This record gives sequence, structure tokens and C-alpha cells, in this order.
Amino acid sequence: MTPPRLPDHRARLAEILVENRLDALVLCGLPNIRYLTGFTGSNALLLITRQDAVFYTDGRYGTQSAQEVRDARIIVRRSGSILRSLIGSIKLRRLRRLGFESNRAGYEFYQTLRSSLPGIGLKGLSGVIENLRVVKSPEEVAAIRRSVRLNSAVFEASIRRIRPGHSEAGVAAAIEHRMRRRGGEKAAFETIVAAGVRSALPHARPTSNPLKTNELIIVDQGVILDGYASDMTRTIALGSLGSRARRVYYAVLEAQQAAIAVVRAGVQARDVDREARRVLDHYGLEKAFVHSTGHGVGLEIHERPRLGRGERTKLEAGMVITIEPGAYLEGFGGVRIEDMVLVTDRGCDVLTPTPKDLWVL
Amino acid sequence: MTPPRLPDHRARLAEILVENRLDALVLCGLPNIRYLTGFTGSNALLLITRQDAVFYTDGRYGTQSAQEVRDARIIVRRSGSILRSLIGSIKLRRLRRLGFESNRAGYEFYQTLRSSLPGIGLKGLSGVIENLRVVKSPEEVAAIRRSVRLNSAVFEASIRRIRPGHSEAGVAAAIEHRMRRRGGEKAAFETIVAAGVRSALPHARPTSNPLKTNELIIVDQGVILDGYASDMTRTIALGSLGSRARRVYYAVLEAQQAAIAVVRAGVQARDVDREARRVLDHYGLEKAFVHSTGHGVGLEIHERPRLGRGERTKLEAGMVITIEPGAYLEGFGGVRIEDMVLVTDRGCDVLTPTPKDLWVL
Repeated sequence: MTPPRLPDHRARLAEILVENRLDALVLCGLPNIRYLTGFTGSNALLLITRQDAVFYTDGRYGTQSAQEVRDARIIVRRSGSILRSLIGSIKLRRLRRLGFESNRAGYEFYQTLRSSLPGIGLKGLSGVIENLRVVKSPEEVAAIRRSVRLNSAVFEASIRRIRPGHSEAGVAAAIEHRMRRRGGEKAAFETIVAAGVRSALPHARPTSNPLKTNELIIVDQGVILDGYASDMTRTIALGSLGSRARRVYYAVLEAQQAAIAVVRAGVQARDVDREARRVLDHYGLEKAFVHSTGHGVGLEIHERPRLGRGERTKLEAGMVITIEPGAYLEGFGGVRIEDMVLVTDRGCDVLTPTPKDLWVL
Repeated sequence: MTPPRLPDHRARLAEILVENRLDALVLCGLPNIRYLTGFTGSNALLLITRQDAVFYTDGRYGTQSAQEVRDARIIVRRSGSILRSLIGSIKLRRLRRLGFESNRAGYEFYQTLRSSLPGIGLKGLSGVIENLRVVKSPEEVAAIRRSVRLNSAVFEASIRRIRPGHSEAGVAAAIEHRMRRRGGEKAAFETIVAAGVRSALPHARPTSNPLKTNELIIVDQGVILDGYASDMTRTIALGSLGSRARRVYYAVLEAQQAAIAVVRAGVQARDVDREARRVLDHYGLEKAFVHSTGHGVGLEIHERPRLGRGERTKLEAGMVITIEPGAYLEGFGGVRIEDMVLVTDRGCDVLTPTPKDLWVL
């Protein structure tokens, strides 16, 4: 798999430099550096000028950066801060106006640049590389499809083994262990298994509480495979559910399907969100839907665009997003159903293969 | 377990405000907020004035913050940024000079404060709460001891099951699964299992490579239990090792024991580091020791102090630190041996119970 790299974005990066009248971009966001160079380590900076690119890392990553990083000169600093090496390059090359990632930079990172480079212009740019990442290349879509398939296979194998009395935390641990046994790097986020009244908490952490029959159980899981994340939620039950829980389930499912049905290149993100809310409103559940309808997924689990109220971003073919409405009733329980979809010119491909009928085990 | 909270540090926090002529501190570092309030969620801010404290979170954490947060007024914001709520409080209370965590604040966080509060003094303070956290309370030491014991039990149970042919990644996954099955929250960091030439990489990620007999295998693992981290490294072998590997092993062990022997309240961090280097130098291995000798551990896996070259911090009774010299020989392999110790007035207690003889399985 070769995801996009620096050369694929060279033209757009040059435009960004010209538009903002900059000599160079200073990148500190690791997922952005990984996207452009292929580097998977935990300490790096990247300087992109109009002519070339320079990659900085520390002595722990000398061998690894030589193997991974393409299309940039590599500087490995044996001791001290790699930011010092970057500042040295900026001075040596007499760069006068620099852009930096305002949404990734820490306050002290900025202050060090500011105080070490008197007279040099520093311009904060928010999401400049993230915006390049929203439309996935065919190679990235292929990697995401593999991640989604692994995630669904792990869900289906794990769910078959759940019994009343197993704990939320035990089920979550078994899911994450199976992800890794089947070749995943790690969980993309802390797996959520939330049963009964705890399913009404959208961000519940698994507890040692035992699972019981006839209650709602939300399972929200994702895996990282070849660097790319997946994300899926299903709501299940051990044994049958009462009529209220079933009503909520099918209302959320209808909202999710309605939202998927409006996804298409050219549609605004807020329109997809509004469609999910419209259906839940019809069932008197709009107030129970306390988060947004979805988000982009790629090298990170939460990427642009956000599918929420007021978000005017136009969907584009090649974006990969989640569609995940939910309804949460305090003291009763909650339902969330989440798929990943690939936006196309004519609509979308639902990537997640796992069935969405109520999983009654 | 009741770790220290705001009231325990009220006097020192008041001093910090007076020393820096501040009306209030704005805290954004989540581990610091957890330390002072008990809150375990993922979005919070804390305002500490000379009189009181105000805690801010979002709607996802309404119920949870009411259960967890003590000694602060709680403001739950249903939509939009919690930083807006904090800025509102600052204006309402007419606070004029604010300290903020320069080592935790992002650039945009700072800019939002700066532009929303014209005329208000903002002073960056680095590590102001981290410094309160370096000396652990008896309750914290007890929690750390439990975390260390769990980590060692998981290591010993997992190591007994290792066979030639198992992969590095499979062993790491089994260790992390066992951590959770035995009640740990999660791994404190990505478990390292690095065999053969890969053991020469201090930050190796586990691969699908099969373990072989007669090679060095580094296992570096930690768990989070009740919020507190543990950290241990052992170097093991499946079958006997050659004389060079054994020589390196016993040199590192001697360096580790020598470093532990000099730990005592009043000693400087650099003196402990120097002692480990002195022994490795004696065996011609000083250049093979490419990292520092240790670090503090608590709510986070890497805390102050750092035990490295030139670090003048004086150790104090109640600090919990790692002692983890290593030697890494490119193309051959590496050895690291790491315990956690509690600094005392007379020396230290080694918290890690796992034997340090070469584990030959």
C-alpha cells in the first residue's frame, strides 16, 4: 500500500505557500507528518519549502526513519530537541515567512519558534494538512476497507461468545485481544461495551458490571490496521427486549438509514445530520440524540469533516465518514448504530458489512 | 483510595498565586485536573482562585462529574466550547491576572484566552501542578504498589507460557489481555516485546517475527490500575545465551543495582544516572546506553523527575521513580532491566517484586 505522499501534494502545498506568502511550512502534527512522509515513530518535525522538504527526528529513530521516510532530507539529532535542528535550518536557509499548524502546535512550541526567530513572520494555519487528508486515495480506501472488514470479523466472532454474567470490561478486553490476534495493530480507541442504564451514556467506559438478559448493550469498536482506523457501533441484546427498547432501536435504525440515503458528493455535512434528526424527531427522540451524526475516519479515528448542526462542508467523492445517530434515555438505556461509508458522486458505498437487524443473542 | 485533592494543596496553591501575583490559575492538563479533582473524563478545565475552584466539562460528563468531582463548583456546558464558559467566569469575576499551564496549553487555547480577554495579564507557568505531584501521598504509594504487583503477576504468568515460534506481537497482546482480565484498566503504554537484533532498538514495536531460542528478548510492560501506572522491564531468553549476551546482561544488572544503591532523599537525579553510567563504562558499554536512567511514575507513565545527565533535581522521600539502565548493540541485541522504587530518607524501597536473575525459560 502506498498512500499519498509529499510528491502527490507538491502542487497544492506550493499553492498554499504562495496564497499565504510563505517561504515554508513547519509541520509538528505527527499524523500529518506520517501522511506526507510515511514515518510511524513518535517524534518528528517536517519543514516544507517551495523547493524541498526536511524531516527531523531523534536518535531512537535513526534506522526507522531511513527505512520509512521518502522524498525528504532526513536529519537525525542525537541529543537535545529536534526543534533546535529545525530552527537551525530556518536560519541557515534565511527563510523569512513561515506557516505553522495552529491546531497542532503547543504554546511552548510556538513560543520557542517566536523567541528563537526574531524578525521572522509566523502565520498560524489551521488544518492545512488535515484538509488534504479528507479525500482518500484509492490506496487509502483499500486500506480502510481492510480495517473495516477486520473490525467486523472481530465483532462477529466476539459477540457469538457473549453470555449473561460476562462483564462489560471482559467483553471489551476480549474484543481488543481478538483484534490483535487477527493482525490489527491495536484498538483505534477504547472499546465501549455499555449495558442497561449505562448504555444511555454515549462515552461510557466498560465496568466490571455483569451483562444481563433483556437489556440494551452498546458495542462501539474500531481497529488500526496498516495505520488506518475503522469504527463501528452495534446495539445488541442477550434475549428479547421490551417494546420501548425495540421502538428506540428501530427509530435509530431508520434515522441511520435515512442519513445514509442522503449522502452524496455535493451535499453539505449538516444536511446529513439534519436528516438523522428529522427521523428521530418524528419518534419524539430528537432531544435524546446528544452528539453529531458522524465524522471522517482515516489515519486518525476522528478526522474532518464533522457531520453536525451548522456544518456547511460539502461532501466530496472519496471522503470516508461514519454515520452514527443514537438515542440516549437517562435511567433507561441507549441505542447507537454506526457504519462507515465512502462518499461517491452518485451516493455512497456502505463499507461496514455487519448486519443491522437487532442482534438478539 | 483517596489521593491528594484540592484541599490538601490549597495552601501551596495560594502561595503560587501570591508569588506570581495572580488572581487565578487556569488548568487545562487533564492528568493535573484529575489529580486535584478526581475527574476521569476526557474534557475539562479548572479555574482556581484564591477563594475557590470552578470545574468545567461538557454534557457527556454531567452525571460523571457530579459523582467524581469534589471541592469545586461544577459547570456543565451543554453545547459549544467549555473554554467559552471559563472565559465567561473570568469576566464575571473580574479576574485581572491569570496563570496558565504553558507546558500543557495548545497554541489555539492560548490565543483564544489572549484575544477574548484584552487587558488581562496571562502568565505561563511550566509544570506548576506536576511539581505538586512528584511526591506521592501514602494513598498514592499504596495504589502504585497495587499496580506494580498486578504488573509483575501478569508478567510472570505470561512469560511462563512463551514458546519458540510465538510472535512478539502475540506475546504483547497476551500480556495486555491478561492485564485486563485481572482487573487492570489498560496497558500504561504499548507493551514492548523485542527479540534478537530488534532488542537493540530501545523503542521497538512488537512485530509478527517469531521468537527463537538463544536470543535476547526485552519485555517492557506497565498497567494502569485505579488510575496509577506501573512500569517494568525484564530481559529474558528461551534457552541459553552465548557469553557475550550474558556479559551484557550482568553488566546492565550491576549498573541497575548500583544505581538503586545510591537512591536516597537529598541525592541529585543526575547522581543516580551517573552511577549507572559508571558501571556500564567499566564494561565498555557506556556508548550502548542511549537513554536516561529513569523517570517518575504516577497518574502518568512519564512524570518528573527525569533521571538523566545534568538533572540537578534533588530526590525527595515519597517520589516514585524507575531505575532502568540498558545497553543496545546494533546488529546484536540489547538488555534493559527496570524496577520501580520509592525514595525514602534512608535509601529506597524497591517496589517491583519480580526477580532479576536472567530469566532463561
